[in-house]
Amino acid sequence: MDKTLILSTILALASFSSIAFAYDPRPLQDFCVADLISTVRINGLPCLDPATVKADDFFFSGLAQPGNTSNPAGAAVTPVGVSQIPGLNTLGLAIARLDYVEGGFFPPHYHPRGSEIHTVLEGSMEVGFVTSAPSFKFYSKVLEKGDVFVVPVGLVHYQRNVGAGKTVSIATFNSQNPGNSVIPNALFGSTPDIDSDYLAKSFALDKETVERLQALF
Amino acid sequence: MDKTLILSTILALASFSSIAFAYDPRPLQDFCVADLISTVRINGLPCLDPATVKADDFFFSGLAQPGNTSNPAGAAVTPVGVSQIPGLNTLGLAIARLDYVEGGFFPPHYHPRGSEIHTVLEGSMEVGFVTSAPSFKFYSKVLEKGDVFVVPVGLVHYQRNVGAGKTVSIATFNSQNPGNSVIPNALFGSTPDIDSDYLAKSFALDKETVERLQALF
Amino acid sequence: MDKTLILSTILALASFSSIAFAYDPRPLQDFCVADLISTVRINGLPCLDPATVKADDFFFSGLAQPGNTSNPAGAAVTPVGVSQIPGLNTLGLAIARLDYVEGGFFPPHYHPRGSEIHTVLEGSMEVGFVTSAPSFKFYSKVLEKGDVFVVPVGLVHYQRNVGAGKTVSIATFNSQNPGNSVIPNALFGSTPDIDSDYLAKSFALDKETVERLQALF
Amino acid sequence: MDKTLILSTILALASFSSIAFAYDPRPLQDFCVADLISTVRINGLPCLDPATVKADDFFFSGLAQPGNTSNPAGAAVTPVGVSQIPGLNTLGLAIARLDYVEGGFFPPHYHPRGSEIHTVLEGSMEVGFVTSAPSFKFYSKVLEKGDVFVVPVGLVHYQRNVGAGKTVSIATFNSQNPGNSVIPNALFGSTPDIDSDYLAKSFALDKETVERLQALF
Amino acid sequence: MDKTLILSTILALASFSSIAFAYDPRPLQDFCVADLISTVRINGLPCLDPATVKADDFFFSGLAQPGNTSNPAGAAVTPVGVSQIPGLNTLGLAIARLDYVEGGFFPPHYHPRGSEIHTVLEGSMEVGFVTSAPSFKFYSKVLEKGDVFVVPVGLVHYQRNVGAGKTVSIATFNSQNPGNSVIPNALFGSTPDIDSDYLAKSFALDKETVERLQALF
Amino acid sequence: MDKTLILSTILALASFSSIAFAYDPRPLQDFCVADLISTVRINGLPCLDPATVKADDFFFSGLAQPGNTSNPAGAAVTPVGVSQIPGLNTLGLAIARLDYVEGGFFPPHYHPRGSEIHTVLEGSMEVGFVTSAPSFKFYSKVLEKGDVFVVPVGLVHYQRNVGAGKTVSIATFNSQNPGNSVIPNALFGSTPDIDSDYLAKSFALDKETVERLQALF
Repeated sequence: MDKTLILSTILALASFSSIAFAYDPRPLQDFCVADLISTVRINGLPCLDPATVKADDFFFSGLAQPGNTSNPAGAAVTPVGVSQIPGLNTLGLAIARLDYVEGGFFPPHYHPRGSEIHTVLEGSMEVGFVTSAPSFKFYSKVLEKGDVFVVPVGLVHYQRNVGAGKTVSIATFNSQNPGNSVIPNALFGSTPDIDSDYLAKSFALDKETVERLQALF
Repeated sequence: MDKTLILSTILALASFSSIAFAYDPRPLQDFCVADLISTVRINGLPCLDPATVKADDFFFSGLAQPGNTSNPAGAAVTPVGVSQIPGLNTLGLAIARLDYVEGGFFPPHYHPRGSEIHTVLEGSMEVGFVTSAPSFKFYSKVLEKGDVFVVPVGLVHYQRNVGAGKTVSIATFNSQNPGNSVIPNALFGSTPDIDSDYLAKSFALDKETVERLQALF
Repeated sequence: MDKTLILSTILALASFSSIAFAYDPRPLQDFCVADLISTVRINGLPCLDPATVKADDFFFSGLAQPGNTSNPAGAAVTPVGVSQIPGLNTLGLAIARLDYVEGGFFPPHYHPRGSEIHTVLEGSMEVGFVTSAPSFKFYSKVLEKGDVFVVPVGLVHYQRNVGAGKTVSIATFNSQNPGNSVIPNALFGSTPDIDSDYLAKSFALDKETVERLQALF
Repeated sequence: MDKTLILSTILALASFSSIAFAYDPRPLQDFCVADLISTVRINGLPCLDPATVKADDFFFSGLAQPGNTSNPAGAAVTPVGVSQIPGLNTLGLAIARLDYVEGGFFPPHYHPRGSEIHTVLEGSMEVGFVTSAPSFKFYSKVLEKGDVFVVPVGLVHYQRNVGAGKTVSIATFNSQNPGNSVIPNALFGSTPDIDSDYLAKSFALDKETVERLQALF
Repeated sequence: MDKTLILSTILALASFSSIAFAYDPRPLQDFCVADLISTVRINGLPCLDPATVKADDFFFSGLAQPGNTSNPAGAAVTPVGVSQIPGLNTLGLAIARLDYVEGGFFPPHYHPRGSEIHTVLEGSMEVGFVTSAPSFKFYSKVLEKGDVFVVPVGLVHYQRNVGAGKTVSIATFNSQNPGNSVIPNALFGSTPDIDSDYLAKSFALDKETVERLQALF
Repeated sequence: MDKTLILSTILALASFSSIAFAYDPRPLQDFCVADLISTVRINGLPCLDPATVKADDFFFSGLAQPGNTSNPAGAAVTPVGVSQIPGLNTLGLAIARLDYVEGGFFPPHYHPRGSEIHTVLEGSMEVGFVTSAPSFKFYSKVLEKGDVFVVPVGLVHYQRNVGAGKTVSIATFNSQNPGNSVIPNALFGSTPDIDSDYLAKSFALDKETVERLQALF
C-alpha cells in the first residue's frame, strides 16, 4: 500500500515534470513557438516557422477539470507548460492547477529553475519553505481561498491540504521549465539506486529502512 | 459620461500599475524582501535585514474578493506585486485578479517588462494580441472557464468579457514590475499633452476629435 | 490620400522592422555570424561556419544615401540590423538612418526589445516619450544638430521634424531585433481587423471613424 | 553519537554556506569590491569606493591547510567566497577546499544558484547527482587524483571518500553565492520543525523515526 | 615628442573612459536616472527620485563640435555615456563621436563590456579586429562615408584615418560602461609599472626598449 | 630562438583556447550535453539526446599530469572545458591546470567572457591585472601554495613563476568559453599581419622592431 502511495505520487509529479518550460534568455523576436517534433536539440526548444503559427499555439483548455487525485498522496498536478502551449517557448512562464483531496499533500520538493506563486481557489492549504545553510529557517503559512504565497527559486518547500474537503490552487512559475526535484523520489527512487549504506549514514537511518524506502519509491 | 468612463479606466489601471515588481536579474541570495520605505533607490528595490523577515512578507490575502468594477469600463484589476508582497522582490513574478462585468473590457495596452498568462476562472473572455511591424498580425481567442492563453512580452493586447454575466480571470507575469502602457491614456492622457496637431496627423483624425479625446482621458 | 499616407508609413516602417537584430543572451564565442538561409529556427539566428566568415560579414555600405521620403508621412528608415550585417547576430546592437522632409514624422510607436539613442546629424527634431501607468508622464525635447536623446526600452515615443528643411538622424538600439510596434497600424491596421465596436469603445470614437481608420491603415 | 554526527555535519556545512558569493548580473564596471559592513542591503552587495581598493581585496590565503574533519561526517569545507575575497562581488565565481577523512562524506544537497566542478587533488571520491522528475536518473563516478566531474546547477548530489586514506578536492561554482541546501538538515533540522506527521507520510517513515531525526539534526 | 604623443593619446582616451555606462541587467522600472552624487555604490549606479526627473536628464548637446585632436595621435573621443546623460543608467547603451586628423589613429584597444558599431560620417577610416586564441584572425575593412562595421565585444581592435583630410565617425556600444582597455597604456603605462624584465621577455623586446616605453606612456 | 619561444607560447596557449566553454544564458533544462559533431551551429552548442547521456559526459581525467612545459615560455595549459567535458555545455564553468617551470610565464592576455580565480597548488606565482582607462591601475600579488586571487572579467593580466622550482596552479572561469586574447600574438601574430607602420606608431617602436616581432610571433 505504501508502495502504491509512492508510485502514485511519482506518477502525479511526473506528469508535472514532463513540462519543458522556458526561463531566462530573453526572446529575440516577437515569439518563437516551440517545434515539439524537431530533432534539433538546443538550450530550450527550436521554433516553428512563424508563418504557420496560429492562435491555438498560445492556447490551452482544461484547467476547469480537476486532476486525478485517486492516488495515495491524494494530490494531482495539471501542468500548463511548453508541452501544452508551445507558444510559451522563450517567454519564461508556466502555470499549473493543483488538486488535493482532504488530507492530500505534495512531498518536499524544489524547482531548480523557477520561483513559484501559490494562489488558493478553494479550500485551505499549508505551504512552507526552508532556507539554505546555515540557517535552515522554516517559513510557513496556512492559506485560505484567495490567499497568495510566494516560494523563492530553488528552496525546499511543500504544500498540503489542512482543511475539511478538497483544495484547489494555481501555481505560477517564472520559467518555461522550472523542473521539479521531488526529494523522496530523488533520494530513494533514483535509477539506479544510490548506495543504501551511504543514505543510511547520511540520514541516520538503518540500512533496512533505507532499502524499504528504495523498494517503495 | 465618456469622460467618467476614461477616468475610471485610468483609476482601475492605475491601481495595477503602482505595483513595483522585479524581473530579470537573478537573485544572489535566498531572498531579498523589499524594504518599501528605504530612501536608497536602485534598479529594483533594496532589501530588509533578513533577520527581520517573517512568513507574512511572502503572503497576501484578498484575491477572493472581486475588484470594484463600478466604472464605465466595467473592469478592475487587483494587483499582487512587490507592493503587496515585498518578498517578491528579485523573484521575477507577479499576479493579479481581473474582474469584468458583462461587456466589461480593458483598453489596448502592453507590458514592457513581462509576458502574461491569462487563466479564466469564471465567465467568457476574448483576448487578442498584435505582432510588431511589418506584419501586424492579430491573434485572438475566446476563453471559457479553465482556458489559458499567453501574450508574449511587449506586444499590444486587450481582453474583454464577451459572455453573459461577469468574468473573472487570473493574470500572471514573469516580472516583479511588468509595467502597463495603456495606449489611449499614453496617447491622449499624458501629462503634459502631446501636441494635438501631431496626433491628428498620425492617426488621421481631425484636431477637434483629438482635443476631445485629450479632454476625456 | 490619407490612405496613401498610412500605407506609405507602413511601408517605411516595415522596411525597418524586417530587421532581425540580437539582444540579451551574451555571446558564447568570439562571434556567431547569422546564417540567413538556414532552415533551423531558434531564439535569434543560427551561425555560419566560422571558417567561412569574412570581413564583409561585419560590414554594410549605404548610410550616406537618404531613404525614400516620398510618402505622405515624409519619413524613411534605413535599417542596419542582422539582415544587413549578419555579423551583428548575438552582439545586441543595431542602428538605422532616419530621414524626414520638412514636417515629416513617425507615428507613435515603441520598441519592445531595445532602448534607443537618437542623434541628430542635420536639421531639427522633436522627440518625446510617455511613461507607463499610472503617471503617463510625457518627456520631450527639441534636438538640433549634434544633440542626443535616449528613449527607455518599451515606452511609447515619436519623432518629428520641427525645423525648416529636412532632418537626418541616427538611431541606435541595444538589441539585434528591437522590434517596432507602430501604434496606429497595430490598432487599426492589423490582419485581421480588431473588432470595431471594441476599438470605438476603448478610444471613445464612433464606429464609423474606427472603420474609416481601419480602411485607411 | 548520531546526534553529534549530525550536528558536526551542520557545522561543517554551515561554515561553507555563510559565504555570500555573486552570480548572474554582469558587472557594470571593472570591479565592485564588496563593502561587507555597509548597512545598505541590495541584491548582492554594495561596493567600496574604488579609490580605496587594494590587491589584498582580491586575495585569500589558507587553502593549503586542511579543514577540521574531526566531526562524525569526517568532512570539512573551507569556503572562498565574497566573505573571504570581497573582490569576488559581481564576478560570479567562488571556490572551496573539501577535506574528507577515510569514509568521510557530505550528505545529499544541492546548490540553488550554481553549477559545480569537482577536481580531486588527493585520494579517491565518489560523486553522483540525480536529475529532476520524472526520470530521477542517477549519474555517478569514482574520481581519482586529477579527475574532474561537473554537477549541473540545482540538482541533488553528494560526494564521499571511497578510498583508503583521506581525500582532498577543489569545488568551483559559477556564483558568488551558490547556496547550499543540505537535505537532511533542511527536512529534519529546520527552525522551527516541519510537522512530523507530514514528514512521516511524505517519507513513509513512522512518526517516532521522524522525531528522532528531528532531535538529531 | 614620442612622449607627448603617448600622453596625448592617454588624455584623449581617458576622457572617453571616464564614462560610466550601464550594460546587462534589465531595467526593473521605466527608468532609473543615475544619481551621480550619491555615496551609495552598487553594480551600476543608484537612481534619482523619479519625481525629480526631467527631460534634460535624457539629453546631451555637443556632438556637432569636433573633439580636440591637437595631440600627437591626432584623434579625439567625445563620449556620451551615463556621466553625460544620467538617464542612460540601466538602459545598456552609449555612443561617442570620434575625430581623426589626416593620419590620426587610435592605438589597439578593446571594450570589456560592449560590442561596438562604427559609422563613418565623413572621411575614410580603416577598422580591424583580431579574434582570440588560437586563430588570431585579423578582419579589417576600409570604411567610407556612410559605411558601417561592427566589432564583437571584447576583441582587440583599432581604427585609423587612411584618407586625405579628417575623418568623423560615430561609435555605438550596447553598454552604459563598455570600458576601454588601451593596450599600450595598460602594458607600459600602468600605475605602478609592470616589471620591465617580464614585459621584455613577453614581447621579445630588450629591457631598454621596454623602459623607454614605460617612460613614454 | 626567440622565434621558438613565441611559437611555443602560441602552441601552449592555443591548446587552451580551443576550449569552447559556456557562459551567461541560464540552462532551460537539467542539462544540455554538447553534441560536438553536430553541423547545426548556434550561440553555444546544440545538445545530445538526453536518453544517450552517461556519467562519462560529465567527466574528465588527466589533471594529475603536468602539461608540456618544454617550450621557451616554460608554461603550459591543460584546459578542461566543453571540448573535454561536453556536459559543461550551458553550465557556465571551465577550469584548467597551469604548469610553469622555474621562470616560466604567460604573456599578458585577457579573457573576454570570464572572470578567473587562480589557486596555487605548488610553488610561487605572481599574478597581476591592470584596470581599463583612464586609471590603468596595476594590482598584483605573489601567491604561495594555497593562496587564491581573482582577476575580474575582461582585464589585462598575467602570471609568472617567481619562486625556485616549478609552480602548479588551478584556474577557474565562470564561462564555458572565456576565450583568451593573448596580446603579443593578437598584435604581432595575427593572420594576416596588421600593418607594421600602424603598429610602430601605436607602440612608439621603429618599423624594423615591429617586423621582427611579426616574424617571431
